[in-house]
Amino acid sequence: MDRPATQRVRVKRVNELARYDRDTLDAILAAMPMCHVGYVFDGRPYVTPTLQWRIGDHIYWHGSAASRMLEAVEGQPVCLTVSLFDGLVLARSAFNFTVNYRSAMLLGTARVVAEPAEKTEALQALMEILVAGHWDQLRPMRSQELKATTVVSMPIEEFSIKLRDGHTIDDDEDYTFPVWAGLVPIRTVMGAPEADPRNLEGVVAPPGLAGFGVG
Amino acid sequence: MDRPATQRVRVKRVNELARYDRDTLDAILAAMPMCHVGYVFDGRPYVTPTLQWRIGDHIYWHGSAASRMLEAVEGQPVCLTVSLFDGLVLARSAFNFTVNYRSAMLLGTARVVAEPAEKTEALQALMEILVAGHWDQLRPMRSQELKATTVVSMPIEEFSIKLRDGHTIDDDEDYTFPVWAGLVPIRTVMGAPEADPRNLEGVVAPPGLAGFGVG
Repeated sequence: MDRPATQRVRVKRVNELARYDRDTLDAILAAMPMCHVGYVFDGRPYVTPTLQWRIGDHIYWHGSAASRMLEAVEGQPVCLTVSLFDGLVLARSAFNFTVNYRSAMLLGTARVVAEPAEKTEALQALMEILVAGHWDQLRPMRSQELKATTVVSMPIEEFSIKLRDGHTIDDDEDYTFPVWAGLVPIRTVMGAPEADPRNLEGVVAPPGLAGFGVG
Repeated sequence: MDRPATQRVRVKRVNELARYDRDTLDAILAAMPMCHVGYVFDGRPYVTPTLQWRIGDHIYWHGSAASRMLEAVEGQPVCLTVSLFDGLVLARSAFNFTVNYRSAMLLGTARVVAEPAEKTEALQALMEILVAGHWDQLRPMRSQELKATTVVSMPIEEFSIKLRDGHTIDDDEDYTFPVWAGLVPIRTVMGAPEADPRNLEGVVAPPGLAGFGVG
């Protein structure tokens, strides 16, 4: 389901880098669970990192119920941005030096997920993304733990995507300038799991550590 | 130079993860050039990714002079956040599942760097961080290119740092629960440079691609 870009989210600066389709959005959200959420608090902006995940046409994020940001977010406008830094692009001039990246910005109104069943389902979906099949292996969640976790959601309605990939683009007359140009890829990779020293004998690392698109 | 945490930036939720010292801040800023800058625009928050860099006690970021965010930012409150996602921390319960990360949040008032010499010096400092020694190898910057680039700065005064590292911390009674726990490290790494197909013969990749702390 693609949506027309609203005026608020339409990327004005470099149209060739803008996208507004759900497939590209969903791929970016799946590739990087870390996001940055912007709130307005006493008229000032605050940007905090957290994990995001998508269920259908809603995006979720969460944190401790003791967080002063999250406790005040119900009904407030938020901006949730997910970015991947994909590489340096060295050009023949500093001006054409750039980076490859993928970034999605979602605007909306935050809703705190209060109903325990919906909250549990949302947290289970996050776990499924990070470590598929792992939820049922864990010590079951207690009701006071659920209360101590704030889950926030907003519908995926207004969003814009900016991305750049590919090689250097230099001014025509600069291609004869004798300096190296090219890409330096940057990747986010998962290392080998490191077992907790207190693990019981015989437990094995979960097979569902799929890397959620990284590496 | 350490500064006392102001009320606005004091981390309230998990004090053992909070830091307020400049050495830790400077290390985070050096390890990850990508940042997320939060602005308030018509009363709503916007969070956009860009590159940040530090010169002494000021932080800088930049973008196209055509950016509607950057053109309106002079004198406005901003929040600049830099985060590194360092790993998944699998626990024996979903509640104690967490991530390792380093994140710095800087608050301040944005100032557009207007003076051409200061702007040039700032851009040169960014290049020096990304590719040491490379600035003088490039086709020199033209005055209209300098005009087309907006550089924004703020003093490093109010900031807070949150980070987590190390192993799983589970509830005492959960250590006998038979499920794997441990770390899954996540790293940002630079790949091998890929030369532009249009490079002149004989040019070589700059030796100063130091990886700015990644990898």
